[in-house]
Amino acid sequence: METRDLIDKNEGKNLPYQEVFEVTSDLIEEISAALRQKNIEQLDYLLDPLHSADIAIIFEQLRGEDRNELTAYFGPEMNPEVLTELEDNALDQVIRQMDDQDVVEAISQLESDDAVDVLEDIHPKDRNRIIAAMPDEERLAVEEGLSYPEDSAGRMVQKNVITVPGSWTVGRVIQFLRTEEELPPEFYEIFIVDPLHHPIGMVSLSQLIRSGDLAPVWEIMDTDPKVVPADIDQEEVAHLFRQYDLTSMGVVDGDGRLLGMITVDDVVDVIDEEAEEDILRMAGVQETDITESILEASKNRIVWLLVNLGTAILASMVIAMFEASIEQMVALAILMPIVASMGGNAGTQTMTVTVRSLATKDLTPSNVKRVIGKEFAIATMNGAVMAVIIGVLSLLYFDNPLLGAVIAVAMIINMVMAGLAGILIPVGLERINIDPALASSIFVTTITDVIGFLAFLGLASIVLM
Amino acid sequence: METRDLIDKNEGKNLPYQEVFEVTSDLIEEISAALRQKNIEQLDYLLDPLHSADIAIIFEQLRGEDRNELTAYFGPEMNPEVLTELEDNALDQVIRQMDDQDVVEAISQLESDDAVDVLEDIHPKDRNRIIAAMPDEERLAVEEGLSYPEDSAGRMVQKNVITVPGSWTVGRVIQFLRTEEELPPEFYEIFIVDPLHHPIGMVSLSQLIRSGDLAPVWEIMDTDPKVVPADIDQEEVAHLFRQYDLTSMGVVDGDGRLLGMITVDDVVDVIDEEAEEDILRMAGVQETDITESILEASKNRIVWLLVNLGTAILASMVIAMFEASIEQMVALAILMPIVASMGGNAGTQTMTVTVRSLATKDLTPSNVKRVIGKEFAIATMNGAVMAVIIGVLSLLYFDNPLLGAVIAVAMIINMVMAGLAGILIPVGLERINIDPALASSIFVTTITDVIGFLAFLGLASIVLM
Repeated sequence: METRDLIDKNEGKNLPYQEVFEVTSDLIEEISAALRQKNIEQLDYLLDPLHSADIAIIFEQLRGEDRNELTAYFGPEMNPEVLTELEDNALDQVIRQMDDQDVVEAISQLESDDAVDVLEDIHPKDRNRIIAAMPDEERLAVEEGLSYPEDSAGRMVQKNVITVPGSWTVGRVIQFLRTEEELPPEFYEIFIVDPLHHPIGMVSLSQLIRSGDLAPVWEIMDTDPKVVPADIDQEEVAHLFRQYDLTSMGVVDGDGRLLGMITVDDVVDVIDEEAEEDILRMAGVQETDITESILEASKNRIVWLLVNLGTAILASMVIAMFEASIEQMVALAILMPIVASMGGNAGTQTMTVTVRSLATKDLTPSNVKRVIGKEFAIATMNGAVMAVIIGVLSLLYFDNPLLGAVIAVAMIINMVMAGLAGILIPVGLERINIDPALASSIFVTTITDVIGFLAFLGLASIVLM
Repeated sequence: METRDLIDKNEGKNLPYQEVFEVTSDLIEEISAALRQKNIEQLDYLLDPLHSADIAIIFEQLRGEDRNELTAYFGPEMNPEVLTELEDNALDQVIRQMDDQDVVEAISQLESDDAVDVLEDIHPKDRNRIIAAMPDEERLAVEEGLSYPEDSAGRMVQKNVITVPGSWTVGRVIQFLRTEEELPPEFYEIFIVDPLHHPIGMVSLSQLIRSGDLAPVWEIMDTDPKVVPADIDQEEVAHLFRQYDLTSMGVVDGDGRLLGMITVDDVVDVIDEEAEEDILRMAGVQETDITESILEASKNRIVWLLVNLGTAILASMVIAMFEASIEQMVALAILMPIVASMGGNAGTQTMTVTVRSLATKDLTPSNVKRVIGKEFAIATMNGAVMAVIIGVLSLLYFDNPLLGAVIAVAMIINMVMAGLAGILIPVGLERINIDPALASSIFVTTITDVIGFLAFLGLASIVLM
C-alpha cells in the first residue's frame, strides 16, 4: 500500500512503523479470502491502489494455490514491473501460470536490464521459448545482455541511454530532451560521446538545467565519467557506486564504446544480494528465498552438514587418541568441549571481521601485515583473560592445580591459533580466488576443534598422567 | 584514482580489476614515502587527481603517524567531503590534528545531512566545541539533525530541498530552477508543497523537462510522494528505497511539514551498514572498523566471549552429570562432540536464514507458521540423513549396534531441536524487540550443546549401562 495512503489511513492510531509501511498480514488474508471467493470487485478494490513492488510481495507471501489464482486474476493485465520484483520460485510459478503470449508481451515492455533480470531468473526451458517469441529488437537486446557472465555488469545494462555529441549547446540538448520521443521514462544523467560512441563526458540533468543555453555541453560536462567494461563483476560495480556516490555509470564494450548504463536503483539490489550472500555462505547456506521448496532447502543445506560431519569426526579421532587418559580422569571429558568451543567463538569473531573487511576492501595488501599483528595481539589478550578464568574455576571445582594450569595453557594456545586462523584463512582463500565467505568457517572450526582437543588432552596426558 | 584515468593508464596490461579500480598498495607506499620525505611536490602529483573518497581510503590505510602528516599536508585546504567518508577512528584522529577553525569551516560547507554524519561520528568533547563555533544557520541545522535519535531518518535529512507550489506552471518551475541562486548542487526531484509546507506531490527533473511549459505542475506531479516521519529508523528508510526504487524521499515533522529529503546515495551506505551490523552481531562483534585500536577491539569482543564461556560451562555441567557413564564407556566422550556440533551447525543455518528473512521482511506474521513447519520438515529430513550416517559409522567402528542406535536417535533429536530453535528464537526475539542478529546465536548454540549432550549421554546411560 502506498506509504502516504497508509499514513493517512492510520492517522492517530500510532501503529508500530512496520504495520504502517508494509503490506500487512491482514491485507494478505483479505486478498487470500477474496481469491477463494473469486470476488473480483473486492480484489480490484484491494489491489488497484498498490505499487507493483507490493503486488510482488503479495505474490510471495500467498500460498501456492492462491498465487495461481492471483496470476489468473491479473491475466494479460499483469504489470510487467511485478515480474522484475519477484523472487525465483514465485517468478517461475507465475510465469508458468501465465499465457506465453502475455509473458512475451510483458517482458518486451521492460527496459533491457529488467528484461534480462527476469529472464535469467526463470527456468531455462521457459526462458528459451519466451526469448524466441520476442520481437527482434527486444530479443537482440536481451540476448546481448544474457551473453555476459552471470553477475557481471553486462547483465545490468540498460541500453536505453541518452547520448549527445559534445558540440551541442546546452540549449540544444534541453530542446532535444523536451521533444525527442524515444527517451527512457526516467533519467538523471546524459552521456556525451565522440563519433565512435566512446563516452567522453557525463552531465547530470541538474547541471544541465543550471547552465546557460549557449554553452557547448563539453564545457560543462564531467570529463571523467565513471565507466566500466561489461564483463566486470557486479560486486565491483556496487563498490564503485558506493565509493563515489554515483547515480549512473556507463558500461563499455571491449572497444570502449558505450553499451548503456547502470543505474543506482539496480545497484541497491546488488549491495543487498552481495551482503546476503556473504551472511548465508558463512553459515553454510546457498542463496535462498522464502518461496523455496522443502526439498530444495534441504538439499541446499545438506552438503555443508556433510562436510561438517567430516570435520566433527576428525575432531573425534583426536579425542580417541587420548582414550586412556580420559578413562583415568573423566574431568578431561567434562572440560574439553570448553576449550574447543571458546576457540571456535574467537575464531569466528576474527573470521567474520576479516571476511567483511575483505568485502568492503578495508583490508588490503597495504595493511594486511599490520592487521595480522593486531589480531594476534587481540587473540593473546582475550585468550589470557579466558585462560585465567577457566583455570581458576577448574582448580576450584576439581581441586587440582595442575588441571587448572593445563586447561589455562590449552585455552590460550587454542585462542591464539583461532585468531590467526580467523585472519589467515580468509586472506589466503581470497588470494587463491576462493570466496572467503564460503569456505573460511569450515577450516577455522576444524582447526579450533582439532587444536583445542589436541592441546588440552595432549598437555593433560603429559602433565597429569 | 579516477576509474577512467586508471583504465587509460593500465590499457593493455590486463590487470586484475581490483588493481584497476582501487587505490593500490603501491600508491599508498609512494604516498607514505613522500610524507616521510616531506616531498610536497610529489604529494601534489599523487594526490591532486584523486577523488575525495579515495583520499579518505588513503587516510584509513596509512599508519597513524603518516595520517597526521597527511592531515598537516592538507591543512586548511582539506576537502570537507573527505571527512564525510572517513571511518570513526581515523576521523577522530584527523579532526584532532586539524586546527579547530579549519574543522568548523569544513563542516559548515557540507550539506546538513553530511555535517550531521561527520559530527555524530566524532568524540563528544570535540563535537560540542566545534558545533558551538559554527555560524548560526549551519549550527541550527546540525543541532536539529542531532536532536533526532541515532540511526533515525531525521539524522539523514538534507535540509536543502527544492519546493514549489502546485499552481506554478512547468515553464515557471524550469525558469526558477535555471535562475534561482540557492539550490542544492545536485537534485533529481522537486517537492510540491501546500501553503503550510505539507508535501502534496513530487516530480522528477526528467518528468518536468519532458512536460509542456504551460501545464501546472500539480497536473504532472506524482500525487503520492513517499514521505516518512523524522523519527523512524534508518533501516525502515532503506527498506522503502529498496522496495520502491526511490531516488529521494521526503521527511516530515510531527505536523506533517516537509523538513527536507533523504537521497539514495546516503541510503546505499545505510544498506551496507545494516547488513554489516547483522553479519558482525551474529558472530558477536560490535560495529567495528579497520582503524580501531587493539584495546578497543579486544574489549569489543570480550563480552561475547565471556557469555560464551558461561554457556560452555553450562554444557560441561550437563556432561558432568554423566561422569559415571563416561567412566564406564569412553566411546561416549569420543562421540558426544559430534552430536553437539552437528546441532550447532544445523541451528546456525536455520538461524541465519531466519535473521535475514526478518531483516528483508520476507518472513512476516502471514507466513511464519508455514515457514516454521517447513524448517521442522527440513530439520527432520537432514537430521535423519546425518543420524543414519553417524549411526552406521559408530556401529562399525565400535562394533556396538546399541551405541549406533543411541547416537542416531540423539542426532535426530538434536538436529530437530536445532531447526526449531533456529527459527523460533530469532522470531521470538524480534517480537519482544530485541535485535535477533544480536542474541540468537548464544541461545541457539546453548540449546544445541545442552540438548546434544543431554540426549546422547542420557540415552546412553539408560540403554547401554
